[in-house]
Amino acid sequence: MIDFQGLLNNIHDDLKTREDKGVVASYIPELSKQDVNTLGLYMQHIDGRSFSAGDAFTPFSIQSISKVLALSKAIAFEDNKIWERVDVEPSGNPFNHLSLLELENGIPRNPLINAGALVIADILVTHLENPKEDFLQYVRNIANDQSIKYNFKVADSEERTGFNNFAAAYLLKSFNNLNNSVDDVLDFYFHQCAIEMSCEQLSKAFYLFANGGQCMQGNQHIPIQQAKRINAIMLTCGFYDEAGEFAFEVGLPGKSGVGGGIVALLPNNFILATWAPGLNPRGNSLIGMQALEQFTSQTNLSIF
Amino acid sequence: MIDFQGLLNNIHDDLKTREDKGVVASYIPELSKQDVNTLGLYMQHIDGRSFSAGDAFTPFSIQSISKVLALSKAIAFEDNKIWERVDVEPSGNPFNHLSLLELENGIPRNPLINAGALVIADILVTHLENPKEDFLQYVRNIANDQSIKYNFKVADSEERTGFNNFAAAYLLKSFNNLNNSVDDVLDFYFHQCAIEMSCEQLSKAFYLFANGGQCMQGNQHIPIQQAKRINAIMLTCGFYDEAGEFAFEVGLPGKSGVGGGIVALLPNNFILATWAPGLNPRGNSLIGMQALEQFTSQTNLSIF
Amino acid sequence: MIDFQGLLNNIHDDLKTREDKGVVASYIPELSKQDVNTLGLYMQHIDGRSFSAGDAFTPFSIQSISKVLALSKAIAFEDNKIWERVDVEPSGNPFNHLSLLELENGIPRNPLINAGALVIADILVTHLENPKEDFLQYVRNIANDQSIKYNFKVADSEERTGFNNFAAAYLLKSFNNLNNSVDDVLDFYFHQCAIEMSCEQLSKAFYLFANGGQCMQGNQHIPIQQAKRINAIMLTCGFYDEAGEFAFEVGLPGKSGVGGGIVALLPNNFILATWAPGLNPRGNSLIGMQALEQFTSQTNLSIF
Amino acid sequence: MIDFQGLLNNIHDDLKTREDKGVVASYIPELSKQDVNTLGLYMQHIDGRSFSAGDAFTPFSIQSISKVLALSKAIAFEDNKIWERVDVEPSGNPFNHLSLLELENGIPRNPLINAGALVIADILVTHLENPKEDFLQYVRNIANDQSIKYNFKVADSEERTGFNNFAAAYLLKSFNNLNNSVDDVLDFYFHQCAIEMSCEQLSKAFYLFANGGQCMQGNQHIPIQQAKRINAIMLTCGFYDEAGEFAFEVGLPGKSGVGGGIVALLPNNFILATWAPGLNPRGNSLIGMQALEQFTSQTNLSIF
Repeated sequence: MIDFQGLLNNIHDDLKTREDKGVVASYIPELSKQDVNTLGLYMQHIDGRSFSAGDAFTPFSIQSISKVLALSKAIAFEDNKIWERVDVEPSGNPFNHLSLLELENGIPRNPLINAGALVIADILVTHLENPKEDFLQYVRNIANDQSIKYNFKVADSEERTGFNNFAAAYLLKSFNNLNNSVDDVLDFYFHQCAIEMSCEQLSKAFYLFANGGQCMQGNQHIPIQQAKRINAIMLTCGFYDEAGEFAFEVGLPGKSGVGGGIVALLPNNFILATWAPGLNPRGNSLIGMQALEQFTSQTNLSIF
Repeated sequence: MIDFQGLLNNIHDDLKTREDKGVVASYIPELSKQDVNTLGLYMQHIDGRSFSAGDAFTPFSIQSISKVLALSKAIAFEDNKIWERVDVEPSGNPFNHLSLLELENGIPRNPLINAGALVIADILVTHLENPKEDFLQYVRNIANDQSIKYNFKVADSEERTGFNNFAAAYLLKSFNNLNNSVDDVLDFYFHQCAIEMSCEQLSKAFYLFANGGQCMQGNQHIPIQQAKRINAIMLTCGFYDEAGEFAFEVGLPGKSGVGGGIVALLPNNFILATWAPGLNPRGNSLIGMQALEQFTSQTNLSIF
Repeated sequence: MIDFQGLLNNIHDDLKTREDKGVVASYIPELSKQDVNTLGLYMQHIDGRSFSAGDAFTPFSIQSISKVLALSKAIAFEDNKIWERVDVEPSGNPFNHLSLLELENGIPRNPLINAGALVIADILVTHLENPKEDFLQYVRNIANDQSIKYNFKVADSEERTGFNNFAAAYLLKSFNNLNNSVDDVLDFYFHQCAIEMSCEQLSKAFYLFANGGQCMQGNQHIPIQQAKRINAIMLTCGFYDEAGEFAFEVGLPGKSGVGGGIVALLPNNFILATWAPGLNPRGNSLIGMQALEQFTSQTNLSIF
Repeated sequence: MIDFQGLLNNIHDDLKTREDKGVVASYIPELSKQDVNTLGLYMQHIDGRSFSAGDAFTPFSIQSISKVLALSKAIAFEDNKIWERVDVEPSGNPFNHLSLLELENGIPRNPLINAGALVIADILVTHLENPKEDFLQYVRNIANDQSIKYNFKVADSEERTGFNNFAAAYLLKSFNNLNNSVDDVLDFYFHQCAIEMSCEQLSKAFYLFANGGQCMQGNQHIPIQQAKRINAIMLTCGFYDEAGEFAFEVGLPGKSGVGGGIVALLPNNFILATWAPGLNPRGNSLIGMQALEQFTSQTNLSIF
């Protein structure tokens, strides 16, 4: 039997001493204040056991990780109908690239690039009565933690400087693939990305994807088939133009965010969340990627 | 316990009656003669049991499925050194698209698009004493079947008309990413694609990828870590610009060929090969994709 | 000596009877009301003579033709400094294509595609005290006609539906290539495009480009070198992805607009403006292109 | 009246002293031996006068300049029929870029990029009895100089190393846009590019384009309309992704070659050929471009 606690400790101690820890995202003032030496690891086993190392209980900005949670909620509302408005193919491009969007008539390549996430946000704005409040409540429910909240400074900051997302939203609008106003969709989207969660909270929130759509409290949020599909999309599209590399090196469905967080999971087995704010040139947490690589190569626990 | 034989029978009988069976590849005369109504299914369980339905024992042209076998042999020779010459990212483009090759300075996106497979072929031509004979022998060995052979008519036909592959090879050569002559590499490559195998033979040959690198006879052809990596590449890149869709709908690593074959596998569990010559617009077997989709949705056996 | 009046009459009469007159732009309600059978021609010779046929004195929406006038004003302010923010190469793409903008780090390919025209608009918003009033006055001055005015309905309509231009502006902003707010730049830009002028007024306004920078009243608005450069840009970039075709078939610098207008000129010789609201699939006036082709092939008056 | 001889002398003397003279093409051994300090200028006036400075009478490898001569011969054979197989739009890409070729189904963007020039070469191989001999004789005739010849070493060198051209030719073949064999077309093409001519000989050969299709000896090689069209193509496509820049800075139709030559012309006025082997990063002669820029800005002789 694997000594998960010992393994997390070893990985934590090894990576803490690395010289190259990547570069903290600087385009949002709130994110740039993060300490590049921070490292948190939290593993939630499907059988209920959990293990942690380092800074596993401090909330940080989940950013793009929120796209998976939003996707699961959109699927709960519209099921397979959402695939008429967004595709499921890897993009082979950076997260904020607009050219593929144009070539394919306004259908984003997948729901985890920004353009696709905006379509998902549009769906949620349509279905939720109080979009921001209701979505936060959904996240609190699946994580079973009412303390999770928005960082409004981060949302405001994005609202003032996220011009690329405005461009993507208007481009979608020009292709008739946005039903609500650009301002409403972006206001929701920037808040969604500005949710703050710890490694522990992320692991608990993603439990449902490792557990056939059922969260730790036993509620079936989405059908098992849809949970599997979300895992497939995470695997093929969860790390921008580094998705193939992550599948290759780590071998788990997962999702990263520019706040330095990563959540990965082995279906019916475990969820592992990491937080290390320094990013590699492709926008994924440098140390987080290494932690996951060490974990799967030492345990041989991967989907492949 | 799942009744695999009954399931294969049901899938076979259901799909046999479908009206739309896709279009048989016409660009190679030998392939165009295939009967669109052919349907073969063969399942090899990791525990030794096997099941079949329909035309499971007739050899057909494996075409691009051979890329996975060639990759495994190249890895046996050069291990991770091959990744200096070919990347592991999904391309988001059709199998024969050259533009991405150019944008990235002659490094193909992955070893399963044509340009990448040519780099792999170049590696084998460098290492094998008698490339064509030795590679065929390797395939015979891992499938444990000495009757497997080349269809020289198909190879000749490709050699006379495969201009797109000539273009890709010369482009690689112009980027110094081909060490042998274009003619030598293409002669090998066209033969590699012209190997004929049945669903049964393919299932046995791919056993090693489902079994941590060890074939049915117990020989360790590649390390477990590399077997996992090949599975990851199959999942993210095995179906051209339909890779995301296949991961999403089927949820298994696999590889298709324009001869109408598909092999898919669940690590440590089973290998399933299908043959149905009619292709969908993206070049993958239409009925084969549906057979695999039915199989995984009815058994819930997928990596996700 | 050429009988210009007879020639204009013949061209007018011939083209009036054509069955295929193209399709009137429908995305702006005001433009869609135009009569596809309208045809106006006005030729202003550099020596002062002028000739006309058909509907040459009715104002219409000049749309993208305004980009040349805005460019000339921006050059008057900043001279060659503007080329740090916009390039002078043909795009090979439709007028509203954003992907090239991204690949080249926010520097639009040329000032006559939408993205480039937005950079020019940004420059004018920076330099003009009352941008909309002052720019209209500039156009009135060079055309020597104080009756020229904006169509505010057209500008409003664009402001409510021109999502593609919003996308381009935000993308420029994300690359730090827009100094003023997106709203201010677009408000100016939509008005600039909504100027209404007749063929006669356009011919007189473009006189300065055929006359080394000097308008009919004798004022030197830009240096001769810059007038030549603007002509060069019109020739290589004035007709979107049909620029090569226009140079090839007509052989004159010119600019088209989706309102159905085209202005072309032979330096030191003449300016010829046409108006025919039906567009070809690439967004240029179908009958206008033919009128210009007939004119230059029958007179052999072209820059080549 | 302009003192052309004095002007050529001044330009020659000024540019001879420049420090940055660009980089001599190194991919062909024969070309790499050229002296970067060489500078030749030759101006042929339409009225028969001629002027020269520096190394104007030494033959050098004309390379891509030959594409214009080949185009004129193809037009003599097939007139406008050639435009079914090659377009006339600027490419916005480097001379050897293949991706646009693919997106547009095997129709090269214009006859002056490599792919387009290969289609033209294919036309000549179809029509000429002894392609290489006959084409050379055509060039000798229009230049009225029987001493012009191929440099077989350069042709051989290209034949052994021009992999990118092989790639382009095979890609065209895969799109059914090459009627002869790749080997035959490339053998012709590499010889065409390996013609050696001096600035004087180039000026005399291009006389026909400045003179409505009629060469100095009075023979009408192509109709005036076609001469104008070739000039238009030179202007929009003659300098790869620097075509807009050349039109903007120089304002003349022209064509460059990697041997360091440039020919430009003002219709009904003059032809000016330059030779300076150092290239700028875009593959055009650095000093040659400056010479032409100085000439047109000091004389105000341009088409604009």
